[in-house]
Amino acid sequence: MKKKPFRIGIVGFGTVGRGTAQILLLERERMARQAGVDIELARIADVRTDLGDTLGLGPGVFTTDFRAIINDPSIDVVVELVGGTTIAASVITETLKAGKHAVTANKALLAEQGNLLFAMAREQERMIGFEAAVCGGIPVIRSLREGLAGNTIQSLFGIVNGTANFILSKMRFEKLTFKAALKEAQRLGFAEADPTFDIKGIDSAHKISILASLAFGQFYRYQDFHIEGITAISDLDITYAEEMGYVIKLLGVAIMTPSGRPFISIAPTLIPADEILAAVNYEYNGVFIKGNFVGHTLYTGKGAGGLPTGSAVVSDIVHIARYGACEKDYLLMYPDGVHGSVVSIDEIEAEYYIRLTAFDKPGVMAKISGVLGAHGISIATLMQKESTVKGDAIIVIKTHASLSRNVRSALDEVNRLDVTVEKAVKLRIINDLYKQQ
Amino acid sequence: MKKKPFRIGIVGFGTVGRGTAQILLLERERMARQAGVDIELARIADVRTDLGDTLGLGPGVFTTDFRAIINDPSIDVVVELVGGTTIAASVITETLKAGKHAVTANKALLAEQGNLLFAMAREQERMIGFEAAVCGGIPVIRSLREGLAGNTIQSLFGIVNGTANFILSKMRFEKLTFKAALKEAQRLGFAEADPTFDIKGIDSAHKISILASLAFGQFYRYQDFHIEGITAISDLDITYAEEMGYVIKLLGVAIMTPSGRPFISIAPTLIPADEILAAVNYEYNGVFIKGNFVGHTLYTGKGAGGLPTGSAVVSDIVHIARYGACEKDYLLMYPDGVHGSVVSIDEIEAEYYIRLTAFDKPGVMAKISGVLGAHGISIATLMQKESTVKGDAIIVIKTHASLSRNVRSALDEVNRLDVTVEKAVKLRIINDLYKQQ
Repeated sequence: MKKKPFRIGIVGFGTVGRGTAQILLLERERMARQAGVDIELARIADVRTDLGDTLGLGPGVFTTDFRAIINDPSIDVVVELVGGTTIAASVITETLKAGKHAVTANKALLAEQGNLLFAMAREQERMIGFEAAVCGGIPVIRSLREGLAGNTIQSLFGIVNGTANFILSKMRFEKLTFKAALKEAQRLGFAEADPTFDIKGIDSAHKISILASLAFGQFYRYQDFHIEGITAISDLDITYAEEMGYVIKLLGVAIMTPSGRPFISIAPTLIPADEILAAVNYEYNGVFIKGNFVGHTLYTGKGAGGLPTGSAVVSDIVHIARYGACEKDYLLMYPDGVHGSVVSIDEIEAEYYIRLTAFDKPGVMAKISGVLGAHGISIATLMQKESTVKGDAIIVIKTHASLSRNVRSALDEVNRLDVTVEKAVKLRIINDLYKQQ
Repeated sequence: MKKKPFRIGIVGFGTVGRGTAQILLLERERMARQAGVDIELARIADVRTDLGDTLGLGPGVFTTDFRAIINDPSIDVVVELVGGTTIAASVITETLKAGKHAVTANKALLAEQGNLLFAMAREQERMIGFEAAVCGGIPVIRSLREGLAGNTIQSLFGIVNGTANFILSKMRFEKLTFKAALKEAQRLGFAEADPTFDIKGIDSAHKISILASLAFGQFYRYQDFHIEGITAISDLDITYAEEMGYVIKLLGVAIMTPSGRPFISIAPTLIPADEILAAVNYEYNGVFIKGNFVGHTLYTGKGAGGLPTGSAVVSDIVHIARYGACEKDYLLMYPDGVHGSVVSIDEIEAEYYIRLTAFDKPGVMAKISGVLGAHGISIATLMQKESTVKGDAIIVIKTHASLSRNVRSALDEVNRLDVTVEKAVKLRIINDLYKQQ
């Protein structure tokens, strides 16, 4: 007896929707072999009506009404690719309520409402596939959920935003300013016209929220994280970091502490230049996961794009086609719908890179180092650099491990000194990712 | 109603058996949450009788008769960790015939008899889990089977033998000779007393056979691959490679060619020093997989050891506990039990590094370059180096892309010249992993 095909509906036909559709059409034969059932792209919903016979699909495939797909009893899985957090939430909740499985690439939605959506999926005994929500086609979600199932996860470090990584790579390798690098990223389509989410660290925070929640088995709200973007990074910082043997990456960090609460931050961070994550450049993403038994594992690849992300969507579809009938609530991310608390950065000890611009005159160094000393911050190295501005000096300090709270209050005081010209730049240094919890 | 526990039997209580048992005991609570069922370590078989109350397990857990485990109707999964290819094969076939799922870490067995074992698993409608067979705890099997399911795999490059990688890393970073590095690897337990399989490339070939078979959907026999070990690599080669901007890695290569047959080789290979695989050092493994949609993805971590490998065994157990009832034959590796043919290295074009030792006298260079030219091999760079042996000269050549067959026959002729002192060393150069099919 021939099995009836497994029918897919896609809601949202932007870059990822189109990539997903292309893959479903091109790989249909191979996927049928892999999933044990024919996977059919049945319907596509989009608000635009001018999609015509895109991809050679008959006009009957397209609709402007996503509910026509959700309410079609012959559809097995609905793929939400509309983005945003309003209509997308309706698509997923209505899909689950209709008794269908959902697949989404929407990290913002999961980071905002994941606990509620996964609780509803459990209630409905349906899956939400979200491999595509973090790191595009790199199977990091599946690795965390299944491949590392034998391990208690202790920490993870991720370069999870391709736009920010592209900008920092351009600044490093081509000596561009932040502004010029951002412009180049926009020209090449790596950054949106409004790049706020990417360069302010919000998109990274969404993704780290998902990874940390999976890793530590509880829902962590990104609003609770320490988040810094890359907008304050100057080409000077890139250069000085390099002189000191470091590379600056927008690094998501999630470390379980002995308190049972994780410390989670997204911030531009100095890591050693010979660290393998330092070699993850341009639009590539990389996640470094430490399990208690396996030790450190690293996953890299392209983090975005219609086809890479579409290939992750398709891996979820194949998974559901294989296992949908078997799937139980135990695969849901946040079983209890509540959220866990995190350790504040104030409680963290770290080494810091500090860049100060001050007047180039006698006594300045004494004032600055006096303030640092008074706050218990000890200096590991200090360089004074010439500034291109006449009369200014640039001071670059590397501290020994200090309480972050003290560094912040010390720099608040330094910023108020009559000898400093600009607000101090401070960046965390992580010397040995392998040694972190 | 409380579900009955999912009961595990382990056959073979060496390093990995012990690691697996430890993890099952330590992570029981977390795994029950993840698998939706309590996973119980029920029985352990080993030929040794002096295991006593190892790990605090009661004496009733141990047996010297593995058939007592296989024939116990309350056991759901049998884990084969005896190694070798004789008893291990019986353990797996009898397990499948008893209607149980099998898990193994045995790459040699799968590379030798995988097509038969997987055919039997299909017949019996049972799974063989083998995440632990390649790259220890790194979930590269699961990534190939599931995470990249949306992609047609085009190529893969793997550093899959930690012993060889450790030796080459020691030679590079600590300037040891091959012999001294091997001795150090043995002292630290990274190499066996008989390291033949590791340093001759056979172990790598077993693993690449498994990865390539998964990637390309057909069983490829490792006996058909082009296999070279690292025994001929001298510290000179490491140094000269580095001068030229390269690192030598024992690299498994599997590239699908337009003919529909892959080229598969295991050989020490020069890759650019800034390539991310070049940063996979010492006992670490790394696999670089290219899918047609996702592009390049890389997976790294520790490739061996009781706990890392045990954690991969456990991930298979969790997978079977979740999905065993749902699993269909479509997940089997080699559906038809036969094997595919591969492209011979003779047909491959490649750049080569060639090191020659010749008498340091006039006319030598003309003779050597004459032979190369006559075979159609054009020289990209050439360095003459002083030898520590008086009267000898070392000549290091980088060729342009040449047919491998021609390089081989040219060097056969060069080796017969009356001006050469030692057999020529030739190593393939791969300049851009990202550009390989």
